[in-house]
Amino acid sequence: MLMDQHIRSIVGAALLEDAPWGDITSETLIPADAVATALLVAREPGVFSGGAVFAAAMTLTSADISVSLALGDGDAFDRGAVLAEVTGPARAVLQAERIGLNFVQRMSGIATLTARYVAEIAGTRAHIVDTRKTTPGLRQFERHAVRSGGGKNHRFSLSDAVMAKDNHLAVLTAGGRDLTEALREVRLRLSHTTHLEVEVDRLDQIEPVLAAGVDTIMLDNFSLDEMREGVALIGGRAVVEASGNVNLDTVGAIARTGVDVISVGALTHSVRSLDIGLDIALESR
Amino acid sequence: MLMDQHIRSIVGAALLEDAPWGDITSETLIPADAVATALLVAREPGVFSGGAVFAAAMTLTSADISVSLALGDGDAFDRGAVLAEVTGPARAVLQAERIGLNFVQRMSGIATLTARYVAEIAGTRAHIVDTRKTTPGLRQFERHAVRSGGGKNHRFSLSDAVMAKDNHLAVLTAGGRDLTEALREVRLRLSHTTHLEVEVDRLDQIEPVLAAGVDTIMLDNFSLDEMREGVALIGGRAVVEASGNVNLDTVGAIARTGVDVISVGALTHSVRSLDIGLDIALESR
Amino acid sequence: MLMDQHIRSIVGAALLEDAPWGDITSETLIPADAVATALLVAREPGVFSGGAVFAAAMTLTSADISVSLALGDGDAFDRGAVLAEVTGPARAVLQAERIGLNFVQRMSGIATLTARYVAEIAGTRAHIVDTRKTTPGLRQFERHAVRSGGGKNHRFSLSDAVMAKDNHLAVLTAGGRDLTEALREVRLRLSHTTHLEVEVDRLDQIEPVLAAGVDTIMLDNFSLDEMREGVALIGGRAVVEASGNVNLDTVGAIARTGVDVISVGALTHSVRSLDIGLDIALESR
Amino acid sequence: MLMDQHIRSIVGAALLEDAPWGDITSETLIPADAVATALLVAREPGVFSGGAVFAAAMTLTSADISVSLALGDGDAFDRGAVLAEVTGPARAVLQAERIGLNFVQRMSGIATLTARYVAEIAGTRAHIVDTRKTTPGLRQFERHAVRSGGGKNHRFSLSDAVMAKDNHLAVLTAGGRDLTEALREVRLRLSHTTHLEVEVDRLDQIEPVLAAGVDTIMLDNFSLDEMREGVALIGGRAVVEASGNVNLDTVGAIARTGVDVISVGALTHSVRSLDIGLDIALESR
Amino acid sequence: MLMDQHIRSIVGAALLEDAPWGDITSETLIPADAVATALLVAREPGVFSGGAVFAAAMTLTSADISVSLALGDGDAFDRGAVLAEVTGPARAVLQAERIGLNFVQRMSGIATLTARYVAEIAGTRAHIVDTRKTTPGLRQFERHAVRSGGGKNHRFSLSDAVMAKDNHLAVLTAGGRDLTEALREVRLRLSHTTHLEVEVDRLDQIEPVLAAGVDTIMLDNFSLDEMREGVALIGGRAVVEASGNVNLDTVGAIARTGVDVISVGALTHSVRSLDIGLDIALESR
Amino acid sequence: MLMDQHIRSIVGAALLEDAPWGDITSETLIPADAVATALLVAREPGVFSGGAVFAAAMTLTSADISVSLALGDGDAFDRGAVLAEVTGPARAVLQAERIGLNFVQRMSGIATLTARYVAEIAGTRAHIVDTRKTTPGLRQFERHAVRSGGGKNHRFSLSDAVMAKDNHLAVLTAGGRDLTEALREVRLRLSHTTHLEVEVDRLDQIEPVLAAGVDTIMLDNFSLDEMREGVALIGGRAVVEASGNVNLDTVGAIARTGVDVISVGALTHSVRSLDIGLDIALESR
Repeated sequence: MLMDQHIRSIVGAALLEDAPWGDITSETLIPADAVATALLVAREPGVFSGGAVFAAAMTLTSADISVSLALGDGDAFDRGAVLAEVTGPARAVLQAERIGLNFVQRMSGIATLTARYVAEIAGTRAHIVDTRKTTPGLRQFERHAVRSGGGKNHRFSLSDAVMAKDNHLAVLTAGGRDLTEALREVRLRLSHTTHLEVEVDRLDQIEPVLAAGVDTIMLDNFSLDEMREGVALIGGRAVVEASGNVNLDTVGAIARTGVDVISVGALTHSVRSLDIGLDIALESR
Repeated sequence: MLMDQHIRSIVGAALLEDAPWGDITSETLIPADAVATALLVAREPGVFSGGAVFAAAMTLTSADISVSLALGDGDAFDRGAVLAEVTGPARAVLQAERIGLNFVQRMSGIATLTARYVAEIAGTRAHIVDTRKTTPGLRQFERHAVRSGGGKNHRFSLSDAVMAKDNHLAVLTAGGRDLTEALREVRLRLSHTTHLEVEVDRLDQIEPVLAAGVDTIMLDNFSLDEMREGVALIGGRAVVEASGNVNLDTVGAIARTGVDVISVGALTHSVRSLDIGLDIALESR
Repeated sequence: MLMDQHIRSIVGAALLEDAPWGDITSETLIPADAVATALLVAREPGVFSGGAVFAAAMTLTSADISVSLALGDGDAFDRGAVLAEVTGPARAVLQAERIGLNFVQRMSGIATLTARYVAEIAGTRAHIVDTRKTTPGLRQFERHAVRSGGGKNHRFSLSDAVMAKDNHLAVLTAGGRDLTEALREVRLRLSHTTHLEVEVDRLDQIEPVLAAGVDTIMLDNFSLDEMREGVALIGGRAVVEASGNVNLDTVGAIARTGVDVISVGALTHSVRSLDIGLDIALESR
Repeated sequence: MLMDQHIRSIVGAALLEDAPWGDITSETLIPADAVATALLVAREPGVFSGGAVFAAAMTLTSADISVSLALGDGDAFDRGAVLAEVTGPARAVLQAERIGLNFVQRMSGIATLTARYVAEIAGTRAHIVDTRKTTPGLRQFERHAVRSGGGKNHRFSLSDAVMAKDNHLAVLTAGGRDLTEALREVRLRLSHTTHLEVEVDRLDQIEPVLAAGVDTIMLDNFSLDEMREGVALIGGRAVVEASGNVNLDTVGAIARTGVDVISVGALTHSVRSLDIGLDIALESR
Repeated sequence: MLMDQHIRSIVGAALLEDAPWGDITSETLIPADAVATALLVAREPGVFSGGAVFAAAMTLTSADISVSLALGDGDAFDRGAVLAEVTGPARAVLQAERIGLNFVQRMSGIATLTARYVAEIAGTRAHIVDTRKTTPGLRQFERHAVRSGGGKNHRFSLSDAVMAKDNHLAVLTAGGRDLTEALREVRLRLSHTTHLEVEVDRLDQIEPVLAAGVDTIMLDNFSLDEMREGVALIGGRAVVEASGNVNLDTVGAIARTGVDVISVGALTHSVRSLDIGLDIALESR
Repeated sequence: MLMDQHIRSIVGAALLEDAPWGDITSETLIPADAVATALLVAREPGVFSGGAVFAAAMTLTSADISVSLALGDGDAFDRGAVLAEVTGPARAVLQAERIGLNFVQRMSGIATLTARYVAEIAGTRAHIVDTRKTTPGLRQFERHAVRSGGGKNHRFSLSDAVMAKDNHLAVLTAGGRDLTEALREVRLRLSHTTHLEVEVDRLDQIEPVLAAGVDTIMLDNFSLDEMREGVALIGGRAVVEASGNVNLDTVGAIARTGVDVISVGALTHSVRSLDIGLDIALESR
């Protein structure tokens, strides 16, 4: 869950980035006592994420702004839906507008895309998960958005789970060392709460990896047939993750091979902001 | 230009976000004395941006990593091109890989997209400029990427130029006040270095705005015919900016109406990471 | 305008600098439940600036202090005027006193000096502006104080306007290059919102600079006669800034030459704190 | 002594304040490979302070700048003296110039003023000390400058010494309590390293304060005759500090009354920047 | 006294360290609307310290938590005593529990140990003081805890008092220089508020040190007989501090030698957390 | 592993805490050009931890100090062993001494205590792990020290593993809900890399918990007989953690019951600093 302290820190920095010495347009053109009422309106359908972040952009700009969220994170909405109402000093609302939108458009964009992936795999046992291909500095916000869309999160960082890839395996088995033995020794050195995931490129790697007692096996760039065979081989002895060539066209078939987890870099490495706008009405007091 | 101090601050925070207490995979699987040689390779053609940022991700992870950039920011490259070479402790190179890529993929993605817009308007007097629809916290990086792609930057923030939009004009002319008079007074209250830009929705707004002596007039959502007429009306007395409905299909025609500046939110509000990879070779010492 | 977030950051740091582990005098000598009522009193006439900053020094020290400002920033006052009233826990009021005064004395000192310059040029078209000769870390506070005194601000920083001085012009015209051509090319490389100001030392530089279409010409260390001639030559085609040898004795004559802007480093490079005191009455509860 | 870590923090923040996204003038007008050689030159005589701070402004802007200081902090110089030499990339030298000057002009201004006070009291036992009337955020720099000028520092902050003033004494003796007894109890509650200073307004307060065993007695706004009498009364049993109405005209006579310490708020509460300039010569490589 | 700003900074960082992206256990297992009522209960007798710090851990986690402290810092309590009551959202109370306890257990552990030392020297003139052997980052909290236990603080840092040890004295008297002379010169260079303490290893060092007019003499690792002799020699002309081999068995005898101050590194260099627990009752709304 | 960036941040803050405006003792008493050679010497046997942290305290104080570590973290040493050699400017070495020692004494104290626990369970399958009862702000340092002593780490924070305790289970089964069903649903909501640990108080809770497929079962305050029975019941289907009443006298017997993991709060909740000193020799240049 997003920590309030973290939201305030990230959003506060973004507000200062966008107005280091105030909003000279509003200060010059808008009377200090003008009041704005604004609606956050969806210009296309989607899944909401970032309500608390949008609200923080407003209330950190002025404690006199009040924000009422009409939807919770994870709620779907249609084009034209009112997502939130904002009331407060007009100068402050105008100043906060762009930053509030920048956050909620991106987070809702991620949630909406995630939900499309999730919809494609409905009825299967699989889960959609994110990757570490997140925007620097915004990982927690983007992981939250993935959850809003019905996805789950992969490891948060390099510090909280082991993922052994081809490079690592090559080092482990250098000099002809047995892979199972090598992985068993790795397992012994890890803390008991540390998840051990190993990426395999070929079916014949599965058995030696499984024999070492790993938690997850990632099938990297397997064909659908190989994936099915891999799932059968593993037989519930480890979580099975599929990775590579995942898109909205392929994800359904991948899920139907029986894998447990499908990781999708596209959820966050490329972000299409959802079209959400702020309709503002001003009145002087 | 990006300040070194700023690069170190942003990249350092991203590295800590991705490895708050180290990379447990590398520490468990890779010998401390293993050395990595890595090539930053383009998997698709594009325009380079973020070389110094990529290098900082490496050298901030370990002062023993050396990075040699093969291209400068703004250079175009083909698929397969080697963009940089990296040598250093294998653990550190593997730890820095994802963050280095996250930055350079996004920045080169923006530069590449910008360059496509710029190419579409070749031969016209127009310039492509960005907007404030940037990723929170990364505005300077993204503006730099726009410049790498041959674009220019709009105002940096709410603090350094005035942009009067419909809401503001409505307030200015409340009670039947004359727009020209109102804008003249605004001008008087601004510092002499502050740029004054006014957004108009209709052709008949141009003359009263011009009469006040503004610096730039933004034609918002004008048709091509209206745009041409607007350019003629303004006749060089102010910079002309076109905004709204700008995409790769429309931008050429817009530019040929004679406008000076075309602002494109899509340059940064939705980012497609360019496919750039790091090919790593390990050797034990 | 000063951002609340910025005020809190700067004032909070100043309070910690002055009392890293509390005010041991108050804690030892004043009962915890003593209450103080205090008046912020002018010991000499002047122009007020820094009300919100003074208030922040109080309320950041203790949320139980209330501050009522009697004047707004920019208001003039006589000797003996009450500028603000403060009520709250005596320990906290005593602890915050010096920092509150340090800020408001300096800011009101700058506002008062600025107002004297502004008074000297009454009836002319000129404006008084500040420079980058501000106290490191306090630029926004000092620029605000200049505005309180009726002045305007020059560019905020090196990042938001171009100012080409003699050194730059020498480089531009190295190898006999034409100045007008060189400046035109500079203009083309700038964003449309970036103000371009060029400093000239001699009258014969004005025409080639003007021909390039610059926004402001600064007449550096011109005699009054040269200034008048410069203003006439420029003829409204650019803003005219006067700089050099500006003091309270000379500023009136300078303004009457017809220049638009007079920059005065002395507004901030040397600060005379205005004599403002806090008269405190204590009572035990 | 100034800590390197502290200098880097303060100067780094000042550089970012002055060039948040670079120096667009230098970047537009100066070739990237141009080299600058610059002399820091005194335009009036004075006492040097801030050498390390000036150097940090340069080297933090570019690690390729080298600075050679010709004088140490505390050294006196004549008009025209070269205080330091700077060599490095021209863009960086130009960018750092203003911030480097802002610091060294202010610090040398304080040192020079302090030295004038110190000169006035030559031959007496007295020392000139500063007060807490420093620029918020720059206290350590300004205290250092006072030492450069031959002065000493008073307490650093509210946390490291007790100074009981009239308000405090009124509270202490409320209800007719004996002052000596009250101060003795205060003394008992203090740490043994905490200095206890008491301000007195009248001669008859001295004996009861002394009887409590305080470390310093401050004679506030005493006439010269009263001061002499006070010094005699105290007779070496406590340090004697004079405060109030101290200026360059009065300080000599005050010192000759025999006091030990004279505190001078004017050293820092109003700063006249010393006229020091940077003479820059550019050459292209 | 602990500054609120400092408490918030330290406690906020600790909360983020312990839950960088939330408490996934509570978020998964506890309903969002569940309410917790909790008692902070002593599982062993002791002296309370850290009430405000404990409360901050709760209220910084959620502004909806209310904390009512039953004891003030410095109050003694028995096993089973209720030290505070907490009410608020169950998720937040559970999330804050460990950090709140970590602080209050350590601070009360220090206060309790200090109180035991203080009890051992009851009836003597001596005071127990801490040293600089504190936990990095928590010095102010630990000094506060020492005061809660009835102890006093030694100098806060290297910046606020001089303590000359054997190494320093060796340097001072290198080349046969007279120690008294050397120390007198040191004294002259110090500010009048700076405490000068000198450590001696032998009785014959006392007279030359005293002759220089130092504030405190520390008797380092003296036997009880030597200490008594030292106290007599000094005869009230300086504060006498005992240091070395101080523990609960020896401190009473040391105090009875007549020393003024006994410094005890063990108060903070080794911390035994006091056994304090949080008894939590949950109810769903 | 400790990140360099993290070490610099924590150690830098500690150095500033201990010398906010320098070390006035060294600056007053030690010549600027004096050189110190120092040995870090063990005054009692133990296990080393914190070498890099100690070195950082030195080199961050002065880049002219060089540190040569004689032991690696995790190496055991005898009384009198030289752990590191330090050479550099005497003022800086003296200034850094206390902070360097504060860190290395505490970290080596934790490593040494951990090693004693590890020695007690030699020959069993069990591992010693730490808890979240760490010093606020120093968790990464203390976890590193536990690893130096041969222990392993439990979860880093509330964010990276689920640990369901009695309170949570009570909520889960409120209204008579089946525990196995409830835990299965919890499992489904977790990410696949998230470790799920459940604490049980009674043997009859084990089977329903196991049936839900949890990763670790913690036996809380079980007798040795119950523990043995619990291990047999679980039969390798989950990791078994023992917790409660663990001390050096009991840990061996606990380990011999066959549990996998023994968590020991005492490793970090109470720290006994190891007696390590710095023997400094000064020489003037």
